[in-house]
Amino acid sequence: MVIVMEKHTPESNVERVTAELVRRGFDVHRSTGVDQTVLGVVGDVASIDPREFELFEGVQEVVRISEPYKLSSRQFKRDKTIIKVRGVTIGGPDVVVMAGPCTIESETQLFETARRVARAGARVLRGGAYKPRTSPYAFQGMGVEGLKLLRAAADECNMATVSEVMEIGQIEGMLQYVDILQVGARNMQNFNLLSALGQIRKPVLLKRGMSATIQEWLLASEYIMSGGNYEVILCERGIRTFETYTRNTLDISAIPVIEKLSHLPIIADPSHAVGRRDKVMPLARAIIAAGADGLLIEVHHDPEKAVCDGPQSLYPEQFARLMDELRIIVPAVGRRL
Amino acid sequence: MVIVMEKHTPESNVERVTAELVRRGFDVHRSTGVDQTVLGVVGDVASIDPREFELFEGVQEVVRISEPYKLSSRQFKRDKTIIKVRGVTIGGPDVVVMAGPCTIESETQLFETARRVARAGARVLRGGAYKPRTSPYAFQGMGVEGLKLLRAAADECNMATVSEVMEIGQIEGMLQYVDILQVGARNMQNFNLLSALGQIRKPVLLKRGMSATIQEWLLASEYIMSGGNYEVILCERGIRTFETYTRNTLDISAIPVIEKLSHLPIIADPSHAVGRRDKVMPLARAIIAAGADGLLIEVHHDPEKAVCDGPQSLYPEQFARLMDELRIIVPAVGRRL
Amino acid sequence: MVIVMEKHTPESNVERVTAELVRRGFDVHRSTGVDQTVLGVVGDVASIDPREFELFEGVQEVVRISEPYKLSSRQFKRDKTIIKVRGVTIGGPDVVVMAGPCTIESETQLFETARRVARAGARVLRGGAYKPRTSPYAFQGMGVEGLKLLRAAADECNMATVSEVMEIGQIEGMLQYVDILQVGARNMQNFNLLSALGQIRKPVLLKRGMSATIQEWLLASEYIMSGGNYEVILCERGIRTFETYTRNTLDISAIPVIEKLSHLPIIADPSHAVGRRDKVMPLARAIIAAGADGLLIEVHHDPEKAVCDGPQSLYPEQFARLMDELRIIVPAVGRRL
Amino acid sequence: MVIVMEKHTPESNVERVTAELVRRGFDVHRSTGVDQTVLGVVGDVASIDPREFELFEGVQEVVRISEPYKLSSRQFKRDKTIIKVRGVTIGGPDVVVMAGPCTIESETQLFETARRVARAGARVLRGGAYKPRTSPYAFQGMGVEGLKLLRAAADECNMATVSEVMEIGQIEGMLQYVDILQVGARNMQNFNLLSALGQIRKPVLLKRGMSATIQEWLLASEYIMSGGNYEVILCERGIRTFETYTRNTLDISAIPVIEKLSHLPIIADPSHAVGRRDKVMPLARAIIAAGADGLLIEVHHDPEKAVCDGPQSLYPEQFARLMDELRIIVPAVGRRL
Repeated sequence: MVIVMEKHTPESNVERVTAELVRRGFDVHRSTGVDQTVLGVVGDVASIDPREFELFEGVQEVVRISEPYKLSSRQFKRDKTIIKVRGVTIGGPDVVVMAGPCTIESETQLFETARRVARAGARVLRGGAYKPRTSPYAFQGMGVEGLKLLRAAADECNMATVSEVMEIGQIEGMLQYVDILQVGARNMQNFNLLSALGQIRKPVLLKRGMSATIQEWLLASEYIMSGGNYEVILCERGIRTFETYTRNTLDISAIPVIEKLSHLPIIADPSHAVGRRDKVMPLARAIIAAGADGLLIEVHHDPEKAVCDGPQSLYPEQFARLMDELRIIVPAVGRRL
Repeated sequence: MVIVMEKHTPESNVERVTAELVRRGFDVHRSTGVDQTVLGVVGDVASIDPREFELFEGVQEVVRISEPYKLSSRQFKRDKTIIKVRGVTIGGPDVVVMAGPCTIESETQLFETARRVARAGARVLRGGAYKPRTSPYAFQGMGVEGLKLLRAAADECNMATVSEVMEIGQIEGMLQYVDILQVGARNMQNFNLLSALGQIRKPVLLKRGMSATIQEWLLASEYIMSGGNYEVILCERGIRTFETYTRNTLDISAIPVIEKLSHLPIIADPSHAVGRRDKVMPLARAIIAAGADGLLIEVHHDPEKAVCDGPQSLYPEQFARLMDELRIIVPAVGRRL
Repeated sequence: MVIVMEKHTPESNVERVTAELVRRGFDVHRSTGVDQTVLGVVGDVASIDPREFELFEGVQEVVRISEPYKLSSRQFKRDKTIIKVRGVTIGGPDVVVMAGPCTIESETQLFETARRVARAGARVLRGGAYKPRTSPYAFQGMGVEGLKLLRAAADECNMATVSEVMEIGQIEGMLQYVDILQVGARNMQNFNLLSALGQIRKPVLLKRGMSATIQEWLLASEYIMSGGNYEVILCERGIRTFETYTRNTLDISAIPVIEKLSHLPIIADPSHAVGRRDKVMPLARAIIAAGADGLLIEVHHDPEKAVCDGPQSLYPEQFARLMDELRIIVPAVGRRL
Repeated sequence: MVIVMEKHTPESNVERVTAELVRRGFDVHRSTGVDQTVLGVVGDVASIDPREFELFEGVQEVVRISEPYKLSSRQFKRDKTIIKVRGVTIGGPDVVVMAGPCTIESETQLFETARRVARAGARVLRGGAYKPRTSPYAFQGMGVEGLKLLRAAADECNMATVSEVMEIGQIEGMLQYVDILQVGARNMQNFNLLSALGQIRKPVLLKRGMSATIQEWLLASEYIMSGGNYEVILCERGIRTFETYTRNTLDISAIPVIEKLSHLPIIADPSHAVGRRDKVMPLARAIIAAGADGLLIEVHHDPEKAVCDGPQSLYPEQFARLMDELRIIVPAVGRRL
């Protein structure tokens, strides 16, 4: 932590700040310039609220320097985390595509969609059994019956499964059907849920909150990892900005940024970011070209009849075409598909 | 709902959209202009995802017109909702000030602070027993022991109590100590929690999510109200913007906007919005001058020693001064304090 | 400037950074902790682009510490700047209200409005003669003829005048009619215009850009002041956020923030921030309660017939009522009106 | 335009609104539902400020439906605009890469850089002679001397040129050296400058403002086109959001959105969006994969010595590598490079 004193502040102010830091057990390194003094603070500064010192007389600014996240940082672990689940390797040379319907609706819908996406090259089947809905008057999901269908369809097609968990009480019941538990954007800072997921030994796919900074997102992953579950997959899905033409603004830069800051795999979800089928394909290509480890994408065998998010679901033939386009792109980023 | 067709689109496109609407049971009113056709759709349009029609050939734009929230709307109930709790009336002519520490730390801290804020005119005592913390390495609250202290301190000072609930499992245990259950900004779209709070019969103070639109906020209140609990108090606490000088940007306009859209009481929390004591007082005055029904504000008898958010807590003597300033302002908005 | 090295980075990386800094003539103070090294850089660091050092091997973060603005800073000048113009004192104990129509339309409109606002207590008459319009198909202003009317109406009512300047070529012609030249939000970073305004000796009212940080706003004022014109009045008018219910989000916190960072007077414009008459009055009260030095507000003697921004213009009788409300509030902030 | 009346509002309110619309010469189509009335307004509604009707008693919402931009709209012109300049075709099957230094500094710098980017496949040479700088204390550009160098270097390498214009007075002097005049993000709503550029007959590259919506951006292009200059190239360069890890947030979705709404060519500038060399290459690949017509990118033969934006400039060998990667990607979007 660095404390910048105001220009020409009396020496007594500098001393008061220094004394308080020493009293709390920190080492203080002082740099005195022509008209300004800067204090470097060494020790376990994570325990300090920087604002406490900002309020001291004569302090201009307090700057945090050590990143508050640890386990997810590249400084802590240089090598990329590779997650293996049912024969699928996430974070390695293969780009991994996770596809399927927003919501599990019926056996026909799910098996039909699963076969089509598997044939095109998807390795993980997605499908929601518990749904967070902005309005209380909307369909809330099939629950455990849906999860059984998800497992069966994935088994038939030799795929792994990913599905969203919304509260602690659901975790136990999901473990036998779901390979990767997904935390939705609205729950990215549901700390009780994150802590509970730190206790299981299955990968967690953590979506970025709609208004979460990259640092907050990494801190949320820390909640899971600090419980002993190190298999976290980060998923960018768009942030909220003033631009309302698209549902959210996909933060494409987050992909190279996370790649530098963290060893965790990073994928992205173009379907929720943009909210409309005709924009999903360009974004999916962009995500892979930017270097992501994979995609999470909505496909429905008959989108007009989907109970939820039909307009952002690809037709199976569009998905197959997209996979062909991605196969052209991956060599440019040194990957395979 | 209104569907705007593209200029000069062929008649067959207009007919295809119309046919689909009629098939689903809606009435369609058609306006044909020189170069553009507009379709008015009448019926239970809440069940339509507007994007479905945006994807029809020839459709330029689909515009939702009925507000999706109902119970919280002024159109549904013209008269302002007035909430009475332990002799305190929220939403009436009195401005109600809720004050106390961020976190309950000890008997001394809580009783000392409660006496000071009560003497200055606060009517509701705040204090957190369960704390959402961005980092997993921080103090997580005193739990039920804290709630008992809260009740005792409030009883001594003849105040009502407000405290944050973080998950469903905590509700039952809070009911005997807490008069108003607070939902924090991070949980504004925790739909399971909101539904559970719809089943109790105590007022709920619902903070606005950091990136929630006013419409989403009202929809969140709908989750509570649709369960039968109509006593919701809305609390503005700052939104996330590009400006990082303050922790959040207090959306002061939300106060008159909510006043027009909804019959629910609206208060604001300047402490979390701005995050620093020296900016809390100007914002608190502004909130009352803008017409809010009350304030939620952090006060600590000894902020330097606070375990949490000390830098944004007022000293008791500052709080007393603020109350004096507010007493000058309230006649300008036709209120009392 | 402070350079934070990555944890456990080899000594050679620290030396390479240090050598480059010394080569450029800076003094380097080094703090070595258990696992991290921090370098304090002293000298004229304004000339360094921090990203240059971020790109060195082993550098985690580069933190700027001296504020890049100087002349507008409280550190440079502790005493508040007080601007006197035609008997009106801005930045002193009086709250100054500037009022009038958005656009000058006719003699009747301007004189009628001027008389009404003067009678209610406004001291400066506003009115646009050159208009920035988002669409090229809209009315662009009366030009010099409008300015003559503005001067005449203000003289009759014993007021000062404020009007917007849009390009360098207009400055010369405005000087004889206008007492305060206003720079609109869209031009806040029109550096050529700002530099030209640094050459005149009349006060400049500088609106905050719709997406400008407080630091950029102060830097823009620096462009004017570095030319020798120290009479800058800052005007908050709302920033762009994801919330679209109001035209912009008035950043009420900017008022106490500027008050702390800068000695320049700070006022706010509720009319453009909120864009609708029925929200203007609550915001105007909030602005004064937050401690602003004044208001810029749109009033029209007959808003239904206004060519521009009629819906956000107050009726003269509303304006008079607002002034009465403000007279109640000002003692709470130790001001007069 | 559509006017939505409040539920159960008295018939007299509906009549009052209708009468006013008819008085102004509009046709009104009325849809009456069970509890709500909707009015469709037909005529030249561009002249109406929707807020005027929002303020009528009983009006819930006024919705604009015709897009206010015309000349840039796909509805106005279905075929993509193709711009030819010095043998380069922008908007056709070829992806066009514009590259060069941020600022023209010297003959050596410019020629050296030009040769390297031309050899790698760039077709347009960029370089700034007039620089907008956030701080008044920074280098402001070489002016006309720089433009002469730009022309000479481009001629030697058989390239077209692009350079930024900052004010009207510069246009005339630029025409003989510059093939494409660039309008920077800060000037996107400098309407006087845009109008002046509508009078010339050279292509204009219009950068999106940092906080401009897509609609405002298209309206800005309208200012140029309504003067008779139809050759506008749109350039996405990042918008301002709460995420501060990158300089701006590149709005990658804007590429397919513009492709749908407008016939104008759309390119993007990854260098300014992200601000750091190590993130530029992933974003450049993403931009092309998303379907853009080209790239504007900063390259410097010796970035460590650049006077401006060195840290975001690619080394020539990085640029050559990027071009090779793009050659892999372009077939996926049916383009050539």
